Amino acid sequence: MRINPDQINEINRSSAEVLEQSYSQLADQLDRKNIDVDKLLHKLGDFQVAIPSWALGQGGTRFGRFKLGGEPSNLIEKLEDIGLLHQLTQSANMVSLHFPWDSVLDYQEVKAKASELHLKFDAVNSNTFQDQIGQSHSYKFGSLSHRDKSVRAQAIAHNIEVIETGDKLGSKSLTIWLADGSNFPAQHNFQQALERTTASLEHIYQKLPEDWKLFIEYKPYEPNFYSMVIQDWGTSFMLANHLGDKAYTLVDLGHHLPNTNIEQIVATLMNQNKLGGFHFNDSKYGDDDLSVGSIKPYALFLIFIELIYGIENNKANPYPAWMIDASHNTKDPLEDLIQSIEAIKIAYAKALLVDQKALAQAQEENDVVLAQELIQDAFLTDVRPLLQKSRVKKGGALNPLGMYRQLSVRQHLIDTRGSGSTATGL
Amino acid sequence: MRINPDQINEINRSSAEVLEQSYSQLADQLDRKNIDVDKLLHKLGDFQVAIPSWALGQGGTRFGRFKLGGEPSNLIEKLEDIGLLHQLTQSANMVSLHFPWDSVLDYQEVKAKASELHLKFDAVNSNTFQDQIGQSHSYKFGSLSHRDKSVRAQAIAHNIEVIETGDKLGSKSLTIWLADGSNFPAQHNFQQALERTTASLEHIYQKLPEDWKLFIEYKPYEPNFYSMVIQDWGTSFMLANHLGDKAYTLVDLGHHLPNTNIEQIVATLMNQNKLGGFHFNDSKYGDDDLSVGSIKPYALFLIFIELIYGIENNKANPYPAWMIDASHNTKDPLEDLIQSIEAIKIAYAKALLVDQKALAQAQEENDVVLAQELIQDAFLTDVRPLLQKSRVKKGGALNPLGMYRQLSVRQHLIDTRGSGSTATGL
Amino acid sequence: MRINPDQINEINRSSAEVLEQSYSQLADQLDRKNIDVDKLLHKLGDFQVAIPSWALGQGGTRFGRFKLGGEPSNLIEKLEDIGLLHQLTQSANMVSLHFPWDSVLDYQEVKAKASELHLKFDAVNSNTFQDQIGQSHSYKFGSLSHRDKSVRAQAIAHNIEVIETGDKLGSKSLTIWLADGSNFPAQHNFQQALERTTASLEHIYQKLPEDWKLFIEYKPYEPNFYSMVIQDWGTSFMLANHLGDKAYTLVDLGHHLPNTNIEQIVATLMNQNKLGGFHFNDSKYGDDDLSVGSIKPYALFLIFIELIYGIENNKANPYPAWMIDASHNTKDPLEDLIQSIEAIKIAYAKALLVDQKALAQAQEENDVVLAQELIQDAFLTDVRPLLQKSRVKKGGALNPLGMYRQLSVRQHLIDTRGSGSTATGL
Amino acid sequence: MRINPDQINEINRSSAEVLEQSYSQLADQLDRKNIDVDKLLHKLGDFQVAIPSWALGQGGTRFGRFKLGGEPSNLIEKLEDIGLLHQLTQSANMVSLHFPWDSVLDYQEVKAKASELHLKFDAVNSNTFQDQIGQSHSYKFGSLSHRDKSVRAQAIAHNIEVIETGDKLGSKSLTIWLADGSNFPAQHNFQQALERTTASLEHIYQKLPEDWKLFIEYKPYEPNFYSMVIQDWGTSFMLANHLGDKAYTLVDLGHHLPNTNIEQIVATLMNQNKLGGFHFNDSKYGDDDLSVGSIKPYALFLIFIELIYGIENNKANPYPAWMIDASHNTKDPLEDLIQSIEAIKIAYAKALLVDQKALAQAQEENDVVLAQELIQDAFLTDVRPLLQKSRVKKGGALNPLGMYRQLSVRQHLIDTRGSGSTATGL
Repeated sequence: MRINPDQINEINRSSAEVLEQSYSQLADQLDRKNIDVDKLLHKLGDFQVAIPSWALGQGGTRFGRFKLGGEPSNLIEKLEDIGLLHQLTQSANMVSLHFPWDSVLDYQEVKAKASELHLKFDAVNSNTFQDQIGQSHSYKFGSLSHRDKSVRAQAIAHNIEVIETGDKLGSKSLTIWLADGSNFPAQHNFQQALERTTASLEHIYQKLPEDWKLFIEYKPYEPNFYSMVIQDWGTSFMLANHLGDKAYTLVDLGHHLPNTNIEQIVATLMNQNKLGGFHFNDSKYGDDDLSVGSIKPYALFLIFIELIYGIENNKANPYPAWMIDASHNTKDPLEDLIQSIEAIKIAYAKALLVDQKALAQAQEENDVVLAQELIQDAFLTDVRPLLQKSRVKKGGALNPLGMYRQLSVRQHLIDTRGSGSTATGL
Repeated sequence: MRINPDQINEINRSSAEVLEQSYSQLADQLDRKNIDVDKLLHKLGDFQVAIPSWALGQGGTRFGRFKLGGEPSNLIEKLEDIGLLHQLTQSANMVSLHFPWDSVLDYQEVKAKASELHLKFDAVNSNTFQDQIGQSHSYKFGSLSHRDKSVRAQAIAHNIEVIETGDKLGSKSLTIWLADGSNFPAQHNFQQALERTTASLEHIYQKLPEDWKLFIEYKPYEPNFYSMVIQDWGTSFMLANHLGDKAYTLVDLGHHLPNTNIEQIVATLMNQNKLGGFHFNDSKYGDDDLSVGSIKPYALFLIFIELIYGIENNKANPYPAWMIDASHNTKDPLEDLIQSIEAIKIAYAKALLVDQKALAQAQEENDVVLAQELIQDAFLTDVRPLLQKSRVKKGGALNPLGMYRQLSVRQHLIDTRGSGSTATGL
Repeated sequence: MRINPDQINEINRSSAEVLEQSYSQLADQLDRKNIDVDKLLHKLGDFQVAIPSWALGQGGTRFGRFKLGGEPSNLIEKLEDIGLLHQLTQSANMVSLHFPWDSVLDYQEVKAKASELHLKFDAVNSNTFQDQIGQSHSYKFGSLSHRDKSVRAQAIAHNIEVIETGDKLGSKSLTIWLADGSNFPAQHNFQQALERTTASLEHIYQKLPEDWKLFIEYKPYEPNFYSMVIQDWGTSFMLANHLGDKAYTLVDLGHHLPNTNIEQIVATLMNQNKLGGFHFNDSKYGDDDLSVGSIKPYALFLIFIELIYGIENNKANPYPAWMIDASHNTKDPLEDLIQSIEAIKIAYAKALLVDQKALAQAQEENDVVLAQELIQDAFLTDVRPLLQKSRVKKGGALNPLGMYRQLSVRQHLIDTRGSGSTATGL
Repeated sequence: MRINPDQINEINRSSAEVLEQSYSQLADQLDRKNIDVDKLLHKLGDFQVAIPSWALGQGGTRFGRFKLGGEPSNLIEKLEDIGLLHQLTQSANMVSLHFPWDSVLDYQEVKAKASELHLKFDAVNSNTFQDQIGQSHSYKFGSLSHRDKSVRAQAIAHNIEVIETGDKLGSKSLTIWLADGSNFPAQHNFQQALERTTASLEHIYQKLPEDWKLFIEYKPYEPNFYSMVIQDWGTSFMLANHLGDKAYTLVDLGHHLPNTNIEQIVATLMNQNKLGGFHFNDSKYGDDDLSVGSIKPYALFLIFIELIYGIENNKANPYPAWMIDASHNTKDPLEDLIQSIEAIKIAYAKALLVDQKALAQAQEENDVVLAQELIQDAFLTDVRPLLQKSRVKKGGALNPLGMYRQLSVRQHLIDTRGSGSTATGL
């Protein structure tokens, strides 16, 4: 589904007056603080986050999955959903593919569709946590860390194939989330599993094109419930250092033990020029994969303060590859993604408002109270008019969620694709 | 599959000498502490734990499920698997059914088969966390707590049907694990969801036969990741008190927040005569559903100390309905269950060894060091000869796991049932 | 120290113009949503939170305590600090005393001072977690739960004495935070410890004046690290139910296991008319006692939604007794309290903005996305002009922290009281 | 206090017969498994763990400290307590000093006393988490990470002084536990705090004698409750790599977030030859500093499996510097240490029993069930006779705790030192 730009403009127009008013009030308020509002608008307009192809259908848990309707059942339809999302939000111009879920039959068709929708292909993702029909070896006991050389070879070959596919589409990075681990003490010899994983990664790394990056994700548990081979940032960082300059750590917000100070991990990785990718979601208990900003928006804001500081100060660290990695068990995935994009940009905008100079001064003087005031002043500011203004300027929806609903998009998708269509994913 | 008792005896005989020696050494050691070894043997022999019908196939996670082979594909085959388990361990003479997974077509056949295998039907379980084909209303947004009266009515009716089915099979209790909850703040009005749940439970409770019990399970998260309607023992206990004398709390070891002192909850519930059921499993992170005793055997032992104390001292609390509630993603389910049964009985036996009189005296004197010595003395004792002796006496396997493997049971099941058969469950 | 009202007005005047502008913009914005701004102003003006007498000095950890200077070294000085806080914020007109830290020598003097400062005496607090010089029995192994009757008698007598003292000062409630527990498995017989505690509480409850309330706090760990006798809301609720209509549960935000859904506990307790008291603070790991709103402001907002809903709908639940219970290891305690009061009122104001009617409708329709939008719309609104307006109207400081600093209050206190004075507390 | 060896022998003799019997039974059992019992005895006899000088008095929490009596009030008395511990257990021949708590006035006297008691000086510890009287700069806002160069210089100088003192006593390593961190978001600039810490460590590292090691401890929280500069093993490992070959990570069992898989961290560090030191204690919630083995003895056993594997296979990793780091709030510290030493040796002995060859084979075959059986077989074995035999052979007490009590050591210490003496520590 594609929305007529005139229609967008028309719907926007109905709220234009209120926006102008709230925007000018906010601009005045920021002016008084000597904040360059135009620069802010630019930054917000430039901000883009990748949408994973596997997040467009209703998600589930081990206890089951409920029906949605109108889910995209092939890659072209997935691109269309993301294209729509980008049209509304102007912040989702990248797609992250997942193989073999997104096997590409006709590269020209896929590239043409993406181009038509102004979408680029971001990091590609391999899958060695499930067995596919016809696969020679099972990943039940691991893939890149498996004891059996032929299983490792199969997993390595799959990753290389993913690189090749991504290369044809214009991707420039491979994300490896390694689900390998153990469910019981003594199942793994930790040291050997780590060494085999290292060797497997070396093989993949060797095949990485010159201008590509390798992102190594970490996770403490799930789907294995005693150990994961790459359990934390320390392990990922160690592996990335070992592999070389093109290897980086990828932070997924849901992949931490209770109470972890994630913003400090972000700061450390950027300080070491090793933060490559970033997966957004939110959670209360574990890898709950909830809508970004729905549970801990302040933590997200604190993380963005570190990200912005690092982007500004750690020039050797690449600009992070942003992606939303959530599961949509309850909400319409497109609505969920709209809310997530909004939450990310709100956190980003607020973090941009922090008076870095005053903060540095307060820190210099150990003025803890003032330092808190400075960041909370930014957090408490209502930045929504900025986001709206920036979106409208770029041709997007003033209120993406409202427009999505006003245009009955989901119903339209159901009418087109049927109520029984199912997207690949979890 | 059924093992010939002669074969059991013959295999046992090969280790009989070593057993006699280790048993007599242990008996001497216990004698010196004035422990009545015969009484211990009796208690161990009497101990039975229910096996859920849904735990006989390979389990999975939201990321997928790997193949096993030889899984029971109907209720009769499930009973046969449990019968085999009981034959080997002599501690699994109860089955816990789950509806609609275990729909019974021919009651006579099922009862005859159970009787043949010396199995009884323990608590029956309802399922309102998944939608079944042809179901009028979806449980996507809840069941007993649902806003829509007709959804609640459907869920209530299902529970009543489960009671009726269980009644025909000789069950005497219904376990309700209510998966209802919310994934996002504001999704639920907490108070109203609780009130609707209470009213729904009242309806079910009214239909409970006179000699039945209702077990109310609690869980802090999963499959909902922001809130669960019955989130903790306090909520379950409150509901059980409200419903009446036949309602009890059910403790599942995996259903707690990190670091919870579960043994204290057990003690409190028994003190209030409201501990009805008990689900065994083990976990490191959340509801990992790992083999009992594989992660925190000492915690299990501490819990058994409270259970034994309560059984002895809280006469108004019913004898708890034990069940293993684990998921078998990695191991052969039958081997996993054998290990779990063994771990439960080891914890039970060790807890029975605690010198309660000396402990009471140490506690009286605030002799914390001695109190620890007393329980650790029990924990450090190697009780395996006791379990073996007790099993052999009852006609079971001295070494159930060894015998299972020696007899190539899994291969036999694959040969009979095929490598593609799938059991219902998660 | 006391600030001249003229001085307050004068300082306020310098920011008056900006306030008027931002306030009128916010008022317009709220008007458009049909929110009664005057009513909001009233509610905010009426909101008062108690300040504990033990939170006016620099706090510490088991690793030590750093010096501050100008700490109040007696009750009169503590009242003066709280009086100042109230003068600036207009939201701290209650004092919560702690015995024996706040032994009162001259009731008339204390009452006169409080009256002069427009302060009332809120809940009184007993202390049986430390030994005092000259005390007959030690609380090393417990107080109300102690095995030794004479220790329990001493602890009961102390609580009764605290009631009597509080009664003379006009307090109407006793808060019991029972630190009793065990550091090691088997140290306690859980059931007996609970029973002894129940009996001790009965004694205290009997001495409670007719118009008093008893607040029972709960906490999962610290200062005991294996078990606490009153470990969770379930236990506190059970005890409160047992004691009678004057007994209530008290929720302290820092007293929960990782990831606990506190707002649901609040909702449940109010539903049962048993939420009596509420202690504010914030934390990342445990009972960190950090400034309110400094770590999880969104969680605080969600909790306030439940509190407001309960105050509106659970008429049989008493209006909660609010108190700040934080420790000030790093910040100047008075600045910390100013920030905490501000954070509480921000959360309160935002929660008041939630469109309850629309939310109920969204919940009715299981419109999870809209329900989230509704509460986030309130959360994202910048309510600070409301707080400022309300404060100025009542004679307080437009910017309490700024004024505190502009007037060099801490330096003034150091000049008066010396840099070595030490307040009682932790 | 010093026990006459004859007295030890005499008391041992009363239990000699039972020991011989249980030992020979165990030896037979192990023989059947082809385990070299003599080698085991040797290993157990050789195992020594350092006792920190600050763990000999009653510990406390921020809520207070209860009295013990007979605490050592100077270094000589501390050495005597440890000497006694070593006499009884034969496993505590090392002392770990802490400065400035253990300021040495007369090196000859201290060395002579240690030599007389057969004690050596293990790692020395610096203290920059407290302010000492007369100190020029405060550590309130940090030490090695402090913004102010002169504070850092003071902290660096202190560490260098500690090295010099340790050098005179024969120590060969410095342990730095850096308590620096922040209580509130924005208090620290994470990157700069890390960089300043790195630079400070470089200064200290430069002063490290050639044959010394530097151990860098990590901890996620406490005494700072938002961030700690060295929050996890990853940060410590990064710093150790940066500093050079003499720098290592130190693992303290209590310094991890909930649910951390510590054994995997141990394996990773040993794989990288960077595990230097190891602090034993146990905990249920945080850094509870409880007696070793009192809460999670199975986890300790799993950790020892990794330690033993690493000692055997990672030849470039130094033999770890073991130390008990617990706090004794409830128990008599000497009794607590006796229990802890016993628990450590039990875990060590059990881990030594694991059939490494069979385990490697089971792992090779992904036989998860068998792998679990193999380690649990070791864990379930009652190894106490081995420990007793080993101890008696070396002249220690068959039952150290029993002998400690039989000889009324604490009473003797109180008689000698008084009931009001206080040891330095927490």
